Amino acid sequence: MALIVQKYGGTSVASVEMIKRIARNAARLHRAGNQVVIVVSAMGKSTDKLLEMIYLQSKAPPERELDVILSTGEQVSMSLLSTALHTIGVEAVSLTGRQAGIITDSNHTRARILEIKEERIVKELQQGKVVIVAGFQGADENGEITTLGRGGSDTTAVAVAAAVGADVCEIYTDVTGVYTIDPHMVAGARRLSYISYDEMLEMANLGARVMHPRAVEMGKKHNIIIHVRSSFTGEEGTIIREVTSVEEKFIVNGIACDVDLAKIAIVGVPDKPGIAAKIFAAIAEAGISVDLIVQSIRKEEDNDILFTVTREDLSKTLSILNEVIEEIDAKEIYHAEDVAKISIIGAGMANAPGVASTMFNALAEEGINIEIISTSEIKVSCLIKKDKINDAAEAVHKAFNLGEENAPVV
Amino acid sequence: MALIVQKYGGTSVASVEMIKRIARNAARLHRAGNQVVIVVSAMGKSTDKLLEMIYLQSKAPPERELDVILSTGEQVSMSLLSTALHTIGVEAVSLTGRQAGIITDSNHTRARILEIKEERIVKELQQGKVVIVAGFQGADENGEITTLGRGGSDTTAVAVAAAVGADVCEIYTDVTGVYTIDPHMVAGARRLSYISYDEMLEMANLGARVMHPRAVEMGKKHNIIIHVRSSFTGEEGTIIREVTSVEEKFIVNGIACDVDLAKIAIVGVPDKPGIAAKIFAAIAEAGISVDLIVQSIRKEEDNDILFTVTREDLSKTLSILNEVIEEIDAKEIYHAEDVAKISIIGAGMANAPGVASTMFNALAEEGINIEIISTSEIKVSCLIKKDKINDAAEAVHKAFNLGEENAPVV
Repeated sequence: MALIVQKYGGTSVASVEMIKRIARNAARLHRAGNQVVIVVSAMGKSTDKLLEMIYLQSKAPPERELDVILSTGEQVSMSLLSTALHTIGVEAVSLTGRQAGIITDSNHTRARILEIKEERIVKELQQGKVVIVAGFQGADENGEITTLGRGGSDTTAVAVAAAVGADVCEIYTDVTGVYTIDPHMVAGARRLSYISYDEMLEMANLGARVMHPRAVEMGKKHNIIIHVRSSFTGEEGTIIREVTSVEEKFIVNGIACDVDLAKIAIVGVPDKPGIAAKIFAAIAEAGISVDLIVQSIRKEEDNDILFTVTREDLSKTLSILNEVIEEIDAKEIYHAEDVAKISIIGAGMANAPGVASTMFNALAEEGINIEIISTSEIKVSCLIKKDKINDAAEAVHKAFNLGEENAPVV
Repeated sequence: MALIVQKYGGTSVASVEMIKRIARNAARLHRAGNQVVIVVSAMGKSTDKLLEMIYLQSKAPPERELDVILSTGEQVSMSLLSTALHTIGVEAVSLTGRQAGIITDSNHTRARILEIKEERIVKELQQGKVVIVAGFQGADENGEITTLGRGGSDTTAVAVAAAVGADVCEIYTDVTGVYTIDPHMVAGARRLSYISYDEMLEMANLGARVMHPRAVEMGKKHNIIIHVRSSFTGEEGTIIREVTSVEEKFIVNGIACDVDLAKIAIVGVPDKPGIAAKIFAAIAEAGISVDLIVQSIRKEEDNDILFTVTREDLSKTLSILNEVIEEIDAKEIYHAEDVAKISIIGAGMANAPGVASTMFNALAEEGINIEIISTSEIKVSCLIKKDKINDAAEAVHKAFNLGEENAPVV
C-alpha cells in the first residue's frame, strides 16, 4: 500500500499500444491497493508538430501563445491514458496543469512552479481513482497557461510527489537507469542501483541526459525517492536518494562526458580588479551558463581568461564579448569547438585522497593532454581534445574499476 | 467604430494560409477602429484525428475525457491565429473557453452555456487587443472542460456577441449565405439578403445546414444581428435579424429539403386514450426526435399512426417500438427509407391564404404524390417519395417565383 507517482516521457506514450501498456501497469498497482498518480508528457513527435505549425505563422511567436499551443500535447496524451484505464475497468481522471493545481510564475516557456494546490489530486485519489496529470505545464495565478521548459515533466512529477507525500516517484524513460558512464561510449558501463542527489546532479549537469537537474534538485529539496527506470523492459532501474552513511558513499560512482562544448580564450586582459566581473556579468545577463573558468597570469600586467560555454551559446557569447573587448582592453579573443569534458563523480571523493591523480594518470597513459582542470567536493572535470573523448572514457572507467559491482577504494 | 464578433468554422481555419487571411481581415477591421472578437473552431480534420486516437483506446470513451481531448483542437487554432495577428503587428490574445468565462452545465459532449463571465474579454478589448476565443468549449463551475456538441462554435459566437453587446455576429462559413433553396438542387436558387430568426430556424431544422438551430435560437433570444457569409469570397451574405414590419415579411422566403428521413407506420392500433402518448414517450426517452406525425382512423376501433425520424435514428426507434408493440396491442410496424420532405418557409405565410394550395398544385402538376402534410405559422411541409425530391424542389421554387428578387404575393 504505497502512494506512487509515475512519470512517462514522450517516447513512452508514443503509440496506442504503449499507452495501453502504461494503463495495464497502473491498473496492476492500483488493484494491489496502491494509490497511483501518473504524470504524462506529450506523445512522441507531437510537440515538434505543434512547433512546426506555430513557426509557420511566425519566426518569433509570442511566448504566451507558444504555451497555449504546446500545452495541448499533454492534454491529448492524458485523455488517452485515462480512457485506456477506463477501458480496463479502472476509474481514472485526467487533469491539466491548472486543474491539478500546479501554480507557476508567469514566465512563459520557462515557468517555475510556485506551489501545488494538491486538494484536487488528493480528493480524486481518495475516491479511488488513478489520477493523470499533464506534465510540463501549469497556470499562473490569473489562470494563464504556462509551460516549464526543459525537463518540465520530470519537474512536475517530483513536485507532485512532494505535494502529495508520495513514497516514490518513478521516472519511466527510454534508458534502463543511470550508468557508471554512457553505455554507448564504453561497453563495460554498469547500471548503478543507487545514486545520491548530488551525484545525480553532477551527472545531469555534466551531460548524462537521464533526468533534468531541476527535477533532481527538487527531489533533493523535498527528499523524494526517485526511481529512474525503463518503460520498455520493466526491470529495476536506479534509485536516487539521500546517501548519509559513509559506507554507502562510493569514491567514484560514475563518469560524465560532454562533447557539446566550446572553449573561449580572452587573451591579454589587463590585470585590474573588476575585469573578470565585467566580462562574466555581461555573459550572465544574456542567460548563458559558463563552466570551467581558468585565469592565468602570463606577464606582470596581462592575464588570459579561458572558459567554456555550450556550443549552442557560442556565437551569442562571442558577440557579447566583441562588445566589451575594447572596454576591457583585451588583445584578442580565440575560440575552439574541438574540446570535450570528462568528469568523475562520487560522493565519497572528498574523503579519499589520490582520486584526481588516478584520473590524470589514466589520461596521461593514453597520451591525452588536459587543457583545464576543475574540481568540486564530489567531482573532478578535465577539458581535453574532443577526438580523444572515447579513449579517455574507456581509460578512466577502467582505472576506477567501474565495470565491477563493488569498485574498490583507490 | 463597431464591436464585431466573427466566427470561423473548421474549413475556414484549415491551413496556414487561411489563418493568415483571417488575421489580415481582422487587422483591417481593428485598424479602422473596431473592436474585434474572433471565435474559432478546430482546424479542418483535426477533430477527426483526435476522435480516431481516442476511439483506438476505447469504443466508448468517457465523455469527460472526450471533452478533454476534443477541446485541444480549438486551443491549437486560437494560438495560431493569435500568433498570426502578432506577426502583422496587431496585439491579440487567445482564450480557452474557461479563460473566456464561458460557464456551462456539466453535461459533457453536449453542454449548455449557463452564463458568460465577460470581464476578461471586455478587459482585453479595452486594452486594444483582438480577442480570440475557442469555440465549441467551456468549463463547468468546477473548472471541468466541457464541449457544446453540434453547432457549438456558432453557439459560442452568438453567446459571446450577446455577452459583450456586439453590433453584429459574423458567421464565416463555406457557403455564401442562406439561399431560397439548396443551390445544388435548383440552379435558379437565389441568395437571401435578409431572413428572420424564425424563418432561419425552420430552414435550419428542416435540413438547410448553414447554421445550427441552437445558435439561431440564442440570436433570437438576445436579438443579435447575425451575418452568415463566406470566408472565401468576402462578399456580403445573408443577415438574420428580427423582422417586424409586415412589408418585410415575404410570403415564402425559402424552401428546405430533407432526404435523411425514414417513415414508420404502426398499423392497427386500438383507439384507446394514452396509446399515442405511450409510444412517443418511449421514443422521446431515448432522445429521438419525431417529426410529421399523422394518426388516421381506418375502422371504428383501429388507428394507424405514421411518423418520421432521421435515418440515423431508424434502427434505434424500431427496437424501441418492438418492445412496446405487444403492450399497445398494435398489429404491425412498417418502415421505409424512400421518403423525403419538402418545406416552404415564410414569415408572411400566416396572413396569405392559398399558399399551401399553390404548393400542392405545383407538386400535383409534376405527378408527385403527397404522403403526409404538416403546417405551422410559417411553414408547410410535405412528405413525398425520395426519387421525386429534385423535381419537387424545382417545381415549388418556380411556383413561388423564388428565383426573382421580389417574389410577388401569390
